Amino acid sequence: MSLKDRGYADKVLRVNLTTKRCSTENLDPDVMRLLLGGKGLGAYYLYKESKPLADPLSPENPFVFVVGPLTGTSAPTAGRFGVVTKSPATKTFLDSYCGGFFGQTMKFAGYDAIVIEGASAEPVVLVVDNESVCFEGAADIWGCTTAESTKRLKGKFGADFQTVVIGPAAERLSPISGIFNDERTAGRGGAGAVLGSKRLKGIALRGTGTVQVHDPAGFDEAAWIAYRMLRMSNQIKRMNDHGTANILGLVNAAGALPTRNYQEGQFERSNEMTGEAWSKEYWTRSIGCYGCPIYCSKIAYSKTRDIAIDGPDFETIWAMGVNCGLTDKEAIIYSNYLCDLYGVDTISVGNIVGFVMELYQRNMISSTDLDGVKAEWGSGDALVALTEKIAKGEGIGELLQKGVREISKHYPGSEDFAMQVKGLEMPAYHPNAAKGIGLSYAVSDRGGCHLRGSPLAELLGGADPLTYEGKADLFKTNQLDVSIIDAGILCYFVKFGITLKEVFQMVNPCTGFEYRDPRDLERVGERITVLSRLFSTREGFSVKDDILPKRALAEPLPSGPAKGHVHELEKLRTEYYHIMGWSENGIPTEERLVELGLKEILQ
Amino acid sequence: MSLKDRGYADKVLRVNLTTKRCSTENLDPDVMRLLLGGKGLGAYYLYKESKPLADPLSPENPFVFVVGPLTGTSAPTAGRFGVVTKSPATKTFLDSYCGGFFGQTMKFAGYDAIVIEGASAEPVVLVVDNESVCFEGAADIWGCTTAESTKRLKGKFGADFQTVVIGPAAERLSPISGIFNDERTAGRGGAGAVLGSKRLKGIALRGTGTVQVHDPAGFDEAAWIAYRMLRMSNQIKRMNDHGTANILGLVNAAGALPTRNYQEGQFERSNEMTGEAWSKEYWTRSIGCYGCPIYCSKIAYSKTRDIAIDGPDFETIWAMGVNCGLTDKEAIIYSNYLCDLYGVDTISVGNIVGFVMELYQRNMISSTDLDGVKAEWGSGDALVALTEKIAKGEGIGELLQKGVREISKHYPGSEDFAMQVKGLEMPAYHPNAAKGIGLSYAVSDRGGCHLRGSPLAELLGGADPLTYEGKADLFKTNQLDVSIIDAGILCYFVKFGITLKEVFQMVNPCTGFEYRDPRDLERVGERITVLSRLFSTREGFSVKDDILPKRALAEPLPSGPAKGHVHELEKLRTEYYHIMGWSENGIPTEERLVELGLKEILQ
Repeated sequence: MSLKDRGYADKVLRVNLTTKRCSTENLDPDVMRLLLGGKGLGAYYLYKESKPLADPLSPENPFVFVVGPLTGTSAPTAGRFGVVTKSPATKTFLDSYCGGFFGQTMKFAGYDAIVIEGASAEPVVLVVDNESVCFEGAADIWGCTTAESTKRLKGKFGADFQTVVIGPAAERLSPISGIFNDERTAGRGGAGAVLGSKRLKGIALRGTGTVQVHDPAGFDEAAWIAYRMLRMSNQIKRMNDHGTANILGLVNAAGALPTRNYQEGQFERSNEMTGEAWSKEYWTRSIGCYGCPIYCSKIAYSKTRDIAIDGPDFETIWAMGVNCGLTDKEAIIYSNYLCDLYGVDTISVGNIVGFVMELYQRNMISSTDLDGVKAEWGSGDALVALTEKIAKGEGIGELLQKGVREISKHYPGSEDFAMQVKGLEMPAYHPNAAKGIGLSYAVSDRGGCHLRGSPLAELLGGADPLTYEGKADLFKTNQLDVSIIDAGILCYFVKFGITLKEVFQMVNPCTGFEYRDPRDLERVGERITVLSRLFSTREGFSVKDDILPKRALAEPLPSGPAKGHVHELEKLRTEYYHIMGWSENGIPTEERLVELGLKEILQ
Repeated sequence: MSLKDRGYADKVLRVNLTTKRCSTENLDPDVMRLLLGGKGLGAYYLYKESKPLADPLSPENPFVFVVGPLTGTSAPTAGRFGVVTKSPATKTFLDSYCGGFFGQTMKFAGYDAIVIEGASAEPVVLVVDNESVCFEGAADIWGCTTAESTKRLKGKFGADFQTVVIGPAAERLSPISGIFNDERTAGRGGAGAVLGSKRLKGIALRGTGTVQVHDPAGFDEAAWIAYRMLRMSNQIKRMNDHGTANILGLVNAAGALPTRNYQEGQFERSNEMTGEAWSKEYWTRSIGCYGCPIYCSKIAYSKTRDIAIDGPDFETIWAMGVNCGLTDKEAIIYSNYLCDLYGVDTISVGNIVGFVMELYQRNMISSTDLDGVKAEWGSGDALVALTEKIAKGEGIGELLQKGVREISKHYPGSEDFAMQVKGLEMPAYHPNAAKGIGLSYAVSDRGGCHLRGSPLAELLGGADPLTYEGKADLFKTNQLDVSIIDAGILCYFVKFGITLKEVFQMVNPCTGFEYRDPRDLERVGERITVLSRLFSTREGFSVKDDILPKRALAEPLPSGPAKGHVHELEKLRTEYYHIMGWSENGIPTEERLVELGLKEILQ
C-alpha cells in the first residue's frame, strides 16, 4: 500500500554528509499507522538508527527533519516542521518545531522526512529543488548571522526557495543554539549545534508539488470545522489581539509567573509586560505562519535602535523581562534581536541571565568575573551585555553559552537554584504554583519543557493549580494530545480552539488509517511518548533524572496565591508512571510495549 | 432543483419593517446560475422590487443584505457580506461590502439574502437566531455610537451574536454614512442612511449551521490552491507586512497620488505616510477577517489620546492625509476614530475636508463660515475639527455631511474641483495619471469608485498608466472580475494572489453550475454589470452622467510623471461602451441582453 495519496509524500530523503551521497526510501505504512508522522516518524528513525550513548555532536548522531500527514494540507496551522535528534543540552531525546514557511514547502517538494547522517569536512548547504538534491559549499556564509545567511541563500537561489539556517552560535556548538526559518526558530535543546557539528549551514528548498489526502470531501469539512472553531474562539482572539503574552497577567495573578530566577511567583511590575502593554507601545503588526488563522506573532519595532524583530513572544518577555526583574522593553527587543541573529534560544538566554543575576545577588560572581557587567536585577544594560556575550561566545559568554546546568557546576551550591531539568532551562510557569506543570518539567522527554504539559489547562480555570489530585491524569492527557499535534504536525495553539476530536476528524480522511475514535488516535500519542522514553532509557535515563531543581522541591514560594508551596514531586511522579503503565523506575514495561504494538516495529 | 447543498442556504429572509412581518423564500436556480449571488442577487432583487425614481430614503427603497455561494466555505476571504440598495448619495445603484465576521454567520444562520422593506415607525433592531427572527425596540441605543451600540447588543444577546449597526450620522440620514460590523464597514454611498430612514438601528444575528458545497473534494483542492497562491504571493506579503498603504509610495512615484484635493499628483512628504512609516510609529497588530489569510488590517494606537482604531487603511491615509496636505498621524487616527464612532465614510470625509481646504485656499469660504476653523492645507487641527463637525452634523457640519457635490452647489464655480462622480467622492488615484482609472470613475455603477477598475494593474507595472490604448479592455476585464468577486463573495485583495481561473476552479465545485471555463464565468460578471446599468438607465442615467469633474478633464497636472496630463475621457468612454455592446448613449442593447440571457429573468 502506498501512502502517497494519503497526506504523505511517501518519500524520505537520506543525506550522508560524510560521503555526500543522497538516496530516498518509502515510508512503511505499518509504522506510519502506529506513529502517524512528525515527531513519531523522527523518533522512529532516531531510535532505530542512532548508536546508543553516541556523542550528540559526533557524526554518529542522526538529525531528522520531519513533517506530518497534515503538513501542507488545508488543515489550519499545517505549515510547521520538526527536527528530531539527540540533544547536546540534555544528552537525550530532542524534538523541536518551527513555524514559518519551510514545512509545507518540504512536503510540496515531496518529502516526509530528511535524515541527515555523518558530518561534512567543510561547511555546506543542502539544496533541494523538488526531486533534485545537491550540495553547495558554504564557506562564504560560515560565520554569518542567520539573517545574513538567509538573505544570501535567497539571493543565490531565488525568493521561491525557503531556507533553514544556523547562526554562529551553532557553528561553535553552543547547546542553546537553534535552527531558523527566517525569524522563526526550532529553538530548544541545541538542535543548531548538531547541524553545526555536521557543518551543515542550512538547507535551501523549493517545492512545487501538491499534497493529496485520502478522502478530500471528508477532509475539507473537518478542516473547515477546525478553522471555524479557531476563528470563533475567544482565547484565539485574545492571542491574535495581544500575542502569546496575552496570558501574562493571568499567569501572574495565579502566582505562577517565575520572577527573578524563580525566587518569586509574582512580578510587581507585571502590568508593564502584558501583551496589552506591548501592543500599545511596541508592536507594529502581526505575522502568521503558513496555514495559520491565528497570527499570534507580533513584530516589535525599536525606535532607539531602528530594528524590527519577530517577537518577543510570551516566553521571551518572561525570560528576559520578568525572570531578570526588568521591564526595559528596548533591552528585551535588542536582546531578542541578538539571539535571533546569532542563533540562540531566548528562553535559555533569559534563564542564563536570570541565573547569573542571582549569582551576582549572592556575591557568588562579581562584575570582574563578568567582564565588567554589573548583573543587577532589573538592569536592561546587563541583559543586553550578557546576551551579547552569550550570543557571540565571547569573554564570560564562552561559559554562559553552555547553559544553566554547565554554569552551575562552576559555582558550588548554585545547582540548587539552577532552574533546569536534564540540562534544559525551564520556562515561564513556576512549578510550585502549578503542580501538573511541575510534573511535566520533571518527566518530559526533552527536559524542562512547557509544551508537553497543561499549563493553560491548569492556569486558565480548568483545574485548581495548587492541588495534586488529577494532575497526573491531566498531564498524561495533554502530553498525548501534544504528541499527536507534533505528529500531525499542527501548532500547539490549536488547543485554544479545537480538541482532539477535531484533530481526529481531520486525520482520518487525510490518512485513511481509520482510527476508530479519538481514543484510538490517543494511542498514537502514547506510542510516541513511549518511544522517546525508550530512547532515553537506552541512554541510561530513569527516575533519577525525572527531577526538579531543589528550589522547586524545597524552597517555598514567599508570596502570592501559592505562598508556602513547594512541589511534592515524588508521589505525583509515581502516579504518573503508574497510569502510563511504566515501572517504578520510569521504564515502559514489556507488556505495555506489546499492548501498544511497538514491540514488533522496534525489533 | 434545490441549491441547498451547492454553497447556498437556498433561503432569502424578507423583512417588512412597516408591517413587522417576516417571511422566507427559496432561490431561483436559473437566476442564480446567471447571477451567482452576492452583488448579482442583490442587484436582481433591487431591480425587480424597487419602484423607479423612488426616493432612496423612502420606505419604497428596498435594502438587501447579501452573501454568496462561497461565503462561509473554506475559500480564502469568504467571510464578507454586501449590501445593495439605491444610494442617497448617487440616487442610483449602490453596492457596498464589509469584512469582519458577519457574512459567514449570516450564511451559517441559513440565509443567502435578507431583504429589508418598508420602514419602522420607531427604532428597532432585527434579531436573527438561526431560523428564529424577531424585532426588539432600539429606542435605548438610538443616538448611540456604533461602538456603544455594538457593545450593548452583544451584551444583551451574547458574544456569539454578530452585529451590524448604524451610527448617529445614518440616523440623521447623512449620505456619507455606512454600516458597521465591529470596526469594519460597508462605507461608501450612504447605505447607513437608508437603514436610518427605515429606523433599523442594526441586526444581531447568530448562525450555527453549516455550508455544504456540491463537490467537496474538488472544492477542497481548489480552495487550497487559492490559499497557497495567496500565502506565497509577494504582493500579499507586502500587504500583510505594511497594510494596504504598502502601495502609497508606488502610487506617489507614478504621480498618481492625488494631493491637496487633486491639485497635484505627488505629495512632497509621502514618505511619512507609507505603510512602512505607519508600521514603525503607530501600528500595533494586524487583524484578519473571517476566512482571510492576508491580515491586511492594522490597528493604530494613539498614545496622546489613548485610543486604538482598526486602521487607517490606504484610502483613509490618502484621503485624510495626502489629500489634505498633512502628515499629522495623530490627527488622522482621531479623525478616523470619529468617523467610525459616528458612522461615516473616511474616504468621503477626507475628500470633503480637502475640498473645504481648497475653498479656503481660494477665499471662497472663511473661517467664520467654518465656525472658526482655519482650514489650511496641512492642518491636523482643521482635519479633526471639521471631521468632528461632519461626524456630528453640527454647525457647518450640517452642510458638509451631505458630501462634496451638495457642498459645491453652495459655492458657485467650485463644481469644477468638486472631485466626485455621480455624487460619490473619488478615491486615492488621480484619474489624469492613470487613464483606465479615470474611465472607471466615470462609468462605474456606484460613481467615483476605485474598486471596479484596475488601479493596481495600471500602477504596479502591468500597463503604462499614461496611455489610452487597451485601457477600455483592461477596465472591462477588471470590472467583470470584480463583479464575480462581489458575487462570490470574496475580498478584492485576492486579486493580488490569484486570477479568475482560480476563482472559477472554486465556483464550479461549490455550486455544481458547470460553468465551462473562466470566460463563461466572466459572463456572470458581465450580466451583473449590465444589470446594475439597467437599474441606472431606468433611473434616467446615461452617457451624460458618465463624466469626470472638470479638474480631471481640463486641468493639466502641474508636475510629476503625468505632468501636463488631463483625462481625455470621451474617446475612451465610447470605446468602452462599444466593447460592452452598449449604445452610444451607454445603454445596454436589447441584443446584448438576449445574448446574456438577462431578458427572460427580468420580464
